[in-house]
Amino acid sequence: MSEKPGKPVAASAIDKHVYKVFPNDMNSHNTVFGGMIMAKCDRLALVVAERHSAHVCVTAAVDSIHFRAPAKGNDTLLFNLSLNRSWGSSMEIGARVEAENSYTGETRHILSAFFTFVALDENGRPVDVPPVIPETRDQVRRFESAEIRREGRLRTRDEISRANG
Amino acid sequence: MSEKPGKPVAASAIDKHVYKVFPNDMNSHNTVFGGMIMAKCDRLALVVAERHSAHVCVTAAVDSIHFRAPAKGNDTLLFNLSLNRSWGSSMEIGARVEAENSYTGETRHILSAFFTFVALDENGRPVDVPPVIPETRDQVRRFESAEIRREGRLRTRDEISRANG
Amino acid sequence: MSEKPGKPVAASAIDKHVYKVFPNDMNSHNTVFGGMIMAKCDRLALVVAERHSAHVCVTAAVDSIHFRAPAKGNDTLLFNLSLNRSWGSSMEIGARVEAENSYTGETRHILSAFFTFVALDENGRPVDVPPVIPETRDQVRRFESAEIRREGRLRTRDEISRANG
Amino acid sequence: MSEKPGKPVAASAIDKHVYKVFPNDMNSHNTVFGGMIMAKCDRLALVVAERHSAHVCVTAAVDSIHFRAPAKGNDTLLFNLSLNRSWGSSMEIGARVEAENSYTGETRHILSAFFTFVALDENGRPVDVPPVIPETRDQVRRFESAEIRREGRLRTRDEISRANG
Amino acid sequence: MSEKPGKPVAASAIDKHVYKVFPNDMNSHNTVFGGMIMAKCDRLALVVAERHSAHVCVTAAVDSIHFRAPAKGNDTLLFNLSLNRSWGSSMEIGARVEAENSYTGETRHILSAFFTFVALDENGRPVDVPPVIPETRDQVRRFESAEIRREGRLRTRDEISRANG
Amino acid sequence: MSEKPGKPVAASAIDKHVYKVFPNDMNSHNTVFGGMIMAKCDRLALVVAERHSAHVCVTAAVDSIHFRAPAKGNDTLLFNLSLNRSWGSSMEIGARVEAENSYTGETRHILSAFFTFVALDENGRPVDVPPVIPETRDQVRRFESAEIRREGRLRTRDEISRANG
Repeated sequence: MSEKPGKPVAASAIDKHVYKVFPNDMNSHNTVFGGMIMAKCDRLALVVAERHSAHVCVTAAVDSIHFRAPAKGNDTLLFNLSLNRSWGSSMEIGARVEAENSYTGETRHILSAFFTFVALDENGRPVDVPPVIPETRDQVRRFESAEIRREGRLRTRDEISRANG
Repeated sequence: MSEKPGKPVAASAIDKHVYKVFPNDMNSHNTVFGGMIMAKCDRLALVVAERHSAHVCVTAAVDSIHFRAPAKGNDTLLFNLSLNRSWGSSMEIGARVEAENSYTGETRHILSAFFTFVALDENGRPVDVPPVIPETRDQVRRFESAEIRREGRLRTRDEISRANG
Repeated sequence: MSEKPGKPVAASAIDKHVYKVFPNDMNSHNTVFGGMIMAKCDRLALVVAERHSAHVCVTAAVDSIHFRAPAKGNDTLLFNLSLNRSWGSSMEIGARVEAENSYTGETRHILSAFFTFVALDENGRPVDVPPVIPETRDQVRRFESAEIRREGRLRTRDEISRANG
Repeated sequence: MSEKPGKPVAASAIDKHVYKVFPNDMNSHNTVFGGMIMAKCDRLALVVAERHSAHVCVTAAVDSIHFRAPAKGNDTLLFNLSLNRSWGSSMEIGARVEAENSYTGETRHILSAFFTFVALDENGRPVDVPPVIPETRDQVRRFESAEIRREGRLRTRDEISRANG
Repeated sequence: MSEKPGKPVAASAIDKHVYKVFPNDMNSHNTVFGGMIMAKCDRLALVVAERHSAHVCVTAAVDSIHFRAPAKGNDTLLFNLSLNRSWGSSMEIGARVEAENSYTGETRHILSAFFTFVALDENGRPVDVPPVIPETRDQVRRFESAEIRREGRLRTRDEISRANG
Repeated sequence: MSEKPGKPVAASAIDKHVYKVFPNDMNSHNTVFGGMIMAKCDRLALVVAERHSAHVCVTAAVDSIHFRAPAKGNDTLLFNLSLNRSWGSSMEIGARVEAENSYTGETRHILSAFFTFVALDENGRPVDVPPVIPETRDQVRRFESAEIRREGRLRTRDEISRANG
């Protein structure tokens, strides 16, 4: 466990990051290209990880990306990202994307995803990051779910290794 | 279970799809932007899903994206994608990205990922797809791992639901 | 003066919108391309205008864009935009861009700009927007400066017309 | 006042620079994205400034961007830029964008803008540029309007400073 | 042979079209990506063809693209395009790209290419275009070389057909 | 003639490289932008040339690009490239692009083109490449046509020189 003082979730979070959809964001079915949304999440999650760790960070893994509903032309996407939990040098960052109709204020849930970043020191070796301090009820819930997800990932990996024995 | 005749993996697979890295593919650490690689995988996986199902398909989920090593300037990326398994209207497509040094022929493993696509009929409703026929030993292994991954995902989702009461 | 009820500045503002600079954002002098920053401001200001007016909006004018300092590779840009004042169908939106060093938290002032948007009805004709309610001291100061800027613009336009007689 | 010999406007001007609009230039209202037009003007104005000064130049300010009419799909944009006046190390460059219907030859006025660039020496410090020699009646008119705009800008800045006391 | 009145070369030509090279224009060897230059030539040649014919035009063929020298970072590319000759509904447009050092005014020859466009009527069928009137000595030389190139292309095509029996 | 051992065509070829068309690939007539297709061919041909020669390569020329039919929205482009022949340090690479309807498996011929690349040593000087070993009937046919095309190019160049004598 890192000896560094903890940092609250809010110190690195990104809230309601706005992206106005344009025609060149569309895929061949004329909904917003999901790959573009994933790429934007990754680029934003990098900022969360580097703010929290104060180190260069790299994406190690992405899990449980769920596309709930397609985003459409003229939607305004809202990206919300925050650090859920850290383990040594690695951090889980949750991303939630919504589509806002800017005329009515209505929003729809578009995508959820969980990114794992690793912090690196100046020699490119993993370096411990400060623990996260969850402060709100939602932050505590996410802090706990992160551990369940992590255990699920490790267990699935083991089962696949054994099956391929 | 779909009554449609099965299709072999090879009928829809993408093999050694080449992408020469250029400076505008770089992130702020001067390695290839991971979000761009994910987005390309998604765009290629769409072709695999639509070839197999002969229907319009949409990305439903992405799992277990692992970044093994950074890709660098002057690398040639090789994208390999194939259908691992299907369940009703949904299909798991595995992606494996390598970086080739085109001068020496050497390759390094960059990324693995698993995409779930759903096939839609002309009214936008899920429609059953043909079963996949795995033919090689690797294809059989991936067919079986897909089921383990799927069960792991469902189990983790249940555990998180229960934890959040 | 519009009869519509006023809306507070905060209801449409964009705060600390994050953009991680990548190598493909650079100009020929290897600082961040100013045109890209202006274009992003315009795309964000559109969201502010459409949120405030609940109408389709178009950029009518941009004034007093000042580049204070160049942004560099690896900076994280922070975009702050808010509605300063409205006159009938037109709205002045102020934009302030800072560059954050995500490792240290330090920020530098990069750019200020003032956008004028016009709200349109379903026939493409200008339509009155709600008055803005400035609530903080900064918002009141910006509300008043907006009027001075507007008068300055009109006076300069007149002087140039007269000079070109 | 610079001792350097003057240069005529024509030596650095850009005339009827052509840009064929494609679908990926559109905004969410399916007219040409204004931010893209501003960014192109900035990139072209840089060439005018560097040709005139024979030095590396940077954008210092942009003023009085007026969008006269939206550009549409299939339009051909025509960009016209020329140096209006210089003061020490700074130069005002006027930009005028028109939309041409290439089938009929008709043009519409889309946008006007005024860019201020500063020339830098090899240490990044401002360096005096040659005076501009206006030769045509239009060039003389623009030379004079540039001074009025500059005085208007300074006066407005003063008034805002005093108001914010 | 078209009965339409001829049009001079200058009525559709593009002269010294400026493009400032930025880092995201580079290929993996850090010179300007040739594919980008070809694509820009094609987009500009379309304007020349549509101006001359007053019809929708499509690229039919490209020949004799020669890369003379690589363009580098900080170069300003200059694109020159003009209509060399027409035959019924088809037109040969010559493109010549130079790289300007905007500080010294020096230019280098980068690329030459010849595009063949076809004009289409409102039903998408080829339609005759006005003859070109070459006025300068260079334009006459290009008018004549165009015929030699065309004959060479047809002869080579015949020889390959015969060889493949 | 190079003393290096020959390499079979298959060792460097690119087969059925997939590209799913998106709306931002369209030109002003809403078919796929031909310049984008040429640029992709160039980027892929570079990989073929560098694989064959094991050296840094540059595009020297492009010939006989023929657009057979427009590609449309929702098409999947298939790029096929292979080395036809080499002469000293230069190589002809043939490109053939088809459009696949991924739902039906149908394909249409979109474009053919011939790229000439030159291999460079570490000082940027041309260096001999291995001879190509054509193995299939099609590869032999292309090997022979390459020589005819080359002679045609040289003859046309001579004729134009003499005409401009």
